[in-house]
Amino acid sequence: MSHFTFLSAGESHGPQLTVIVTGMPAGVRLDRERINRDMARRQHGHGRGGRMKIEHDEIEIVGGVRGGETLGSPIAIVVRNDDFTNWEVAMGVWNVDADEAQKRRVHAPRPGHVDLIGGMKYDRHDLRDILERASARETASRVAAGAMAKELLRNFGIELRSGVVSVGAAGDPDRATTWDDLGAVDDDSPMRAVDRDAEAAMVAEVDKAREAGETLGGTIVAAAHNVPIGLGSYVQWNEKLDGRIAQAILSIHAVKAVAIGDGVAAAQRVGSEVHDPIYFDEEHRYHRTSNRAGGLEGGVTNGQDVVVRAYMKPISTLRRGLPSVDIETHEPHRSQWERSDVTAVPACGVVCEAMLAIALADAMREKFGGDSLGEMKANFEAYSAHIGEY
Amino acid sequence: MSHFTFLSAGESHGPQLTVIVTGMPAGVRLDRERINRDMARRQHGHGRGGRMKIEHDEIEIVGGVRGGETLGSPIAIVVRNDDFTNWEVAMGVWNVDADEAQKRRVHAPRPGHVDLIGGMKYDRHDLRDILERASARETASRVAAGAMAKELLRNFGIELRSGVVSVGAAGDPDRATTWDDLGAVDDDSPMRAVDRDAEAAMVAEVDKAREAGETLGGTIVAAAHNVPIGLGSYVQWNEKLDGRIAQAILSIHAVKAVAIGDGVAAAQRVGSEVHDPIYFDEEHRYHRTSNRAGGLEGGVTNGQDVVVRAYMKPISTLRRGLPSVDIETHEPHRSQWERSDVTAVPACGVVCEAMLAIALADAMREKFGGDSLGEMKANFEAYSAHIGEY
Amino acid sequence: MSHFTFLSAGESHGPQLTVIVTGMPAGVRLDRERINRDMARRQHGHGRGGRMKIEHDEIEIVGGVRGGETLGSPIAIVVRNDDFTNWEVAMGVWNVDADEAQKRRVHAPRPGHVDLIGGMKYDRHDLRDILERASARETASRVAAGAMAKELLRNFGIELRSGVVSVGAAGDPDRATTWDDLGAVDDDSPMRAVDRDAEAAMVAEVDKAREAGETLGGTIVAAAHNVPIGLGSYVQWNEKLDGRIAQAILSIHAVKAVAIGDGVAAAQRVGSEVHDPIYFDEEHRYHRTSNRAGGLEGGVTNGQDVVVRAYMKPISTLRRGLPSVDIETHEPHRSQWERSDVTAVPACGVVCEAMLAIALADAMREKFGGDSLGEMKANFEAYSAHIGEY
Amino acid sequence: MSHFTFLSAGESHGPQLTVIVTGMPAGVRLDRERINRDMARRQHGHGRGGRMKIEHDEIEIVGGVRGGETLGSPIAIVVRNDDFTNWEVAMGVWNVDADEAQKRRVHAPRPGHVDLIGGMKYDRHDLRDILERASARETASRVAAGAMAKELLRNFGIELRSGVVSVGAAGDPDRATTWDDLGAVDDDSPMRAVDRDAEAAMVAEVDKAREAGETLGGTIVAAAHNVPIGLGSYVQWNEKLDGRIAQAILSIHAVKAVAIGDGVAAAQRVGSEVHDPIYFDEEHRYHRTSNRAGGLEGGVTNGQDVVVRAYMKPISTLRRGLPSVDIETHEPHRSQWERSDVTAVPACGVVCEAMLAIALADAMREKFGGDSLGEMKANFEAYSAHIGEY
Repeated sequence: MSHFTFLSAGESHGPQLTVIVTGMPAGVRLDRERINRDMARRQHGHGRGGRMKIEHDEIEIVGGVRGGETLGSPIAIVVRNDDFTNWEVAMGVWNVDADEAQKRRVHAPRPGHVDLIGGMKYDRHDLRDILERASARETASRVAAGAMAKELLRNFGIELRSGVVSVGAAGDPDRATTWDDLGAVDDDSPMRAVDRDAEAAMVAEVDKAREAGETLGGTIVAAAHNVPIGLGSYVQWNEKLDGRIAQAILSIHAVKAVAIGDGVAAAQRVGSEVHDPIYFDEEHRYHRTSNRAGGLEGGVTNGQDVVVRAYMKPISTLRRGLPSVDIETHEPHRSQWERSDVTAVPACGVVCEAMLAIALADAMREKFGGDSLGEMKANFEAYSAHIGEY
Repeated sequence: MSHFTFLSAGESHGPQLTVIVTGMPAGVRLDRERINRDMARRQHGHGRGGRMKIEHDEIEIVGGVRGGETLGSPIAIVVRNDDFTNWEVAMGVWNVDADEAQKRRVHAPRPGHVDLIGGMKYDRHDLRDILERASARETASRVAAGAMAKELLRNFGIELRSGVVSVGAAGDPDRATTWDDLGAVDDDSPMRAVDRDAEAAMVAEVDKAREAGETLGGTIVAAAHNVPIGLGSYVQWNEKLDGRIAQAILSIHAVKAVAIGDGVAAAQRVGSEVHDPIYFDEEHRYHRTSNRAGGLEGGVTNGQDVVVRAYMKPISTLRRGLPSVDIETHEPHRSQWERSDVTAVPACGVVCEAMLAIALADAMREKFGGDSLGEMKANFEAYSAHIGEY
Repeated sequence: MSHFTFLSAGESHGPQLTVIVTGMPAGVRLDRERINRDMARRQHGHGRGGRMKIEHDEIEIVGGVRGGETLGSPIAIVVRNDDFTNWEVAMGVWNVDADEAQKRRVHAPRPGHVDLIGGMKYDRHDLRDILERASARETASRVAAGAMAKELLRNFGIELRSGVVSVGAAGDPDRATTWDDLGAVDDDSPMRAVDRDAEAAMVAEVDKAREAGETLGGTIVAAAHNVPIGLGSYVQWNEKLDGRIAQAILSIHAVKAVAIGDGVAAAQRVGSEVHDPIYFDEEHRYHRTSNRAGGLEGGVTNGQDVVVRAYMKPISTLRRGLPSVDIETHEPHRSQWERSDVTAVPACGVVCEAMLAIALADAMREKFGGDSLGEMKANFEAYSAHIGEY
Repeated sequence: MSHFTFLSAGESHGPQLTVIVTGMPAGVRLDRERINRDMARRQHGHGRGGRMKIEHDEIEIVGGVRGGETLGSPIAIVVRNDDFTNWEVAMGVWNVDADEAQKRRVHAPRPGHVDLIGGMKYDRHDLRDILERASARETASRVAAGAMAKELLRNFGIELRSGVVSVGAAGDPDRATTWDDLGAVDDDSPMRAVDRDAEAAMVAEVDKAREAGETLGGTIVAAAHNVPIGLGSYVQWNEKLDGRIAQAILSIHAVKAVAIGDGVAAAQRVGSEVHDPIYFDEEHRYHRTSNRAGGLEGGVTNGQDVVVRAYMKPISTLRRGLPSVDIETHEPHRSQWERSDVTAVPACGVVCEAMLAIALADAMREKFGGDSLGEMKANFEAYSAHIGEY
């Protein structure tokens, strides 16, 4: 049994994204509509650019599934880039039209993006060779892989949600946010705000930024519900689940900070106001009346909701450009602009869900083993019963 | 060549910590004093408990080094627990005195710590079996491994620093902090504060907490200087160096949030106030006049200082205890207290340096390969010269 | 930089095989014809069944390459299953026709294949769910990934060859076989025999087996030429390159034994007849006059040809069937037959080349690092020059 | 939960070997005598040199165990090198006496050993820096780690055995060898021969070689009994358990070939004489009447004994030396001799058991998950019951 994880490949304007998901047990029934709904959720949101109108992402499964049920084999997923037809002459796998490539050439790197650094690292002189893979288009792969993780997790009652608590200066990045609060998020709303009352201010913030040729980031809360006690471990530094979740979230494009539970605020409080007291209730279970730890103690899930906060910087592609340098002339040159979004904070929440789901699915596979869903569930239930007597 | 990383083993009151460091090239001369100085730095700080007086950590290298020079083999390091003599009867590897074990038994788990959850996960009923490994004593292993990483990195001019910007409510968790600012930190000062003027308030905050039987967390900035352009990659989610650093830092005991550069604040600003403009200077180099990205763009180092902010929660062991449950009787029971610190924020900075150094050493090994230091340096220099012409 | 390795997905009668290759540097020019020639070489050979007439494998690259040159991004490759059109009703990803599935159902497992064991492990009751992924069709993925490895290696002068030394009782499994001997192998010959004189006997052996409803295995030698000194390492058990090559080769379908150099025979000889004496020649280089070690000493390449021998058992699908059990009735039932080969030994050589190439490419990336081919080559050349003075 | 595996460190004449074993569940009771017996078994055998009289290996556990029971934490093991006292001046970690080092200097590399190649790779000019880590002394680490694996496996009824079938020209390398045959091996006999009648000839072969200043290799069979159905997987090339076992075995010093079951011989036979027919017996179980597959079909265990054959080349250190070159003068120089064995084939069997046990323990952990032995056993038993109805 390998880890529940994924590899992806594919350029933003290439023919397709390709994803291989490993570690899925046999016997999981997949719901295509539900998966594609997640793909669509990633494309919504006020502040998106023109591409979202061109692309309408749908997954195509090309391995590991038969009659809608997983086989235990790796799952291969394709997400076609509808836009490729417009780009094929410049981005062909085997042949590239020199004129067209010249036209699409990127030579004025965007500060904040990896354009310049990638060009130096990989020794490429058309920065398109960098940005095509570095593009946030790759997050569609993550959502596809994350949807697989969710299909697995729901068999154990585990569900995921996310919402936006701030966009630029609008909203409250520190807003206390529970699983129930996230239930209020409307996927069809412009900003997927947790606080519906803040939505209008967020929209206005985006509109103002668009007018100014600017971009915006924001703050997202993602959470998982019904997570069992005991995922992850403290026994080795790289087994701590909070660290693994941190990597998963901070690896998302433009995310520059991540907190578990009250992570940032807790650093300013005293111990008795941070730790969640332990009680034993009438139903003979340990329980807590607060969840400031965000569901993780010592790198292990404690049965409460896993709550993660992601801080996203503004998109690096500003319509107004930023001071930069032409890599061919070394002369000052405003950074180039290519059709882009003003903000992608609402979409980022969906990506956070995906990455959190993958981290949890992996931890579930580690703990419960098994090759079929039935076997994994039997192990899960036996453990649950056993710790119910602790 | 394997990754530059480490495994550790050992319980807090067991005979020793054992560390194996992999991925070190041959031919690196080690400075024992410098390494032990790092071990000592981890033990300093106002707010530490009694144990720091008992232990005086020194590394003992028992493999991979001959005549002070690395051989290319894995490096084995031992850090003895001087306190073991007092604990051997209760913590013996083969024999445990039942009475003594009963006396040392932990049955009232500490909220915030993994005591209860670990007991359930590993099916142990003396929570000492959990806390002995989950203890922050393990960070001595990290500092030892990190010291090896630093010994490697210094051959490439890479150095590390850290300092404390807030402790509890004292200081400013958002304080803008550069490499130069960190140069002001005095390792012998009580709090290792970046802002020397804030030191007194921090000390007072700790004293107040101690009196109240409370504990404190705080905020730390760690940074690396002279990091070459091009470490890490955007090509796959788990190769992004910011994500890998996030895991390394958030896996540290009690750290609950991590930010790269202006991570948290950047989420509230517009793009033009976040991204670092690119210029080309008279010395024919690309340069920046700001470092809000904290040295990482697209998951790749951009040649600026790598700056990381860690948010540490208060220690979970409060002298006054917290509401908890006796796991044997299921009756309410104040959480148990064992000799502990009021705060370990100053020490945590040293641990952050270690983990950051390990993540960077690993990325250096990936990029430059080589089996001897000479080979690695030749590769490094050829690359540096090459990108100097970009 | 990640490992040079690959993941594959896809069922034998599903829509396609999907491969993601990681660890390829930027700037490697690919030759589509050369790659497809390897794909075709895997399909040749006397003793193949009907499917080889249906399929004509060609790779389709859908990520990581632009204008025929690698970008440093992961490479995604598709190999379509032309036969899928005939199977879609029984093997559809989302919908399966119940009657058709019943008709294609496998319920009498083949001894030697994983049918029965896979059914139990993954809790599947149509053994087609197992054999579709376990099928040797998967080796097309390996050849595609291996072709990428070869494209990289040829930039360092490293080449690969393979040939058949025995098929069933024909030929000599212990035949001493050098790189030059492998040069005599004709890819268009029926058996790809190293000893052209043995070819007729091998063909006769296959024809005899076919008549008898039997299958055959055989022995293959694969080798790599111009491999640099110093790949792999002895410092940790899992870094030894001979062990890694052994895994790569023995993971090939039906391969049940692997030897490095004179591996099997060396166990019966005295030391002075096994070890390759070291000389220093007029050109001021260390050299050997024999290569009984097969290019590896202590798990590290020694600059001589890497020579590997693979022992393949007969294919598990016999036309005459073998005693087995109907998993539904538990009654005795002859194992089912599905269009299959009498032997695939000639093809297996091509797969051995692929896996050997992948293991070497990975070891090259470890040792020489670099993100572009130019950087990697510069590192390689500096090292080569340096050890030339040893 | 991490993999069941180990890292080791330590030089042959350094202070100690250090081993960290990961992936052990909590609650496994260890038997110190049984573990040390394995350590002693590795030291026995006719044909060993002087060192075996000096060293009397015993493990010292310094982490992960309390009162003889595992805690779920990584296990740290020390094996002291008693000989270090004689070597400290030449092999000191921090200080090396120049004269003594000069005296112990190795400058005439042994063909077959990694001396020369390692010197070039790691850029060392005293070959002692290479051979100290490359030495087969490292196998003591493997036996210690393997003993931990066995302690785990025995809770599932899994046991391991090994024996020698040939030494040099004595004995029969192809001897069919079952689990029961291995029961006849006497650990106290000079050669640990499977065929007791061949023992005298083997001893004579060793004595003859010793007189001639030669060395010998041989052939070993190792097996595991009571292995459950379904370990390993066919779904990805690197999950195949036969490949993983092949790596584990071929990574052992001097082992140059490995076969599963009748691996080498099967390549010459027809299918019906190779595959093990499947029957369903009166006790309502699938069973086989032969085990030519060596317990693995398609890379997955099939419930029969796992049988592995290892081919060991003669030791590279010949008393009579071999043609070699002085690396300082580049003049011909007989390879240097240092106290060594004539053969280590009997010991190698114990190392094969250890590596096989580790591979199986890892596969068991993958399949059954769990953090405590109780949880893992419950999962194992539920699965066993379930497939009993297949």
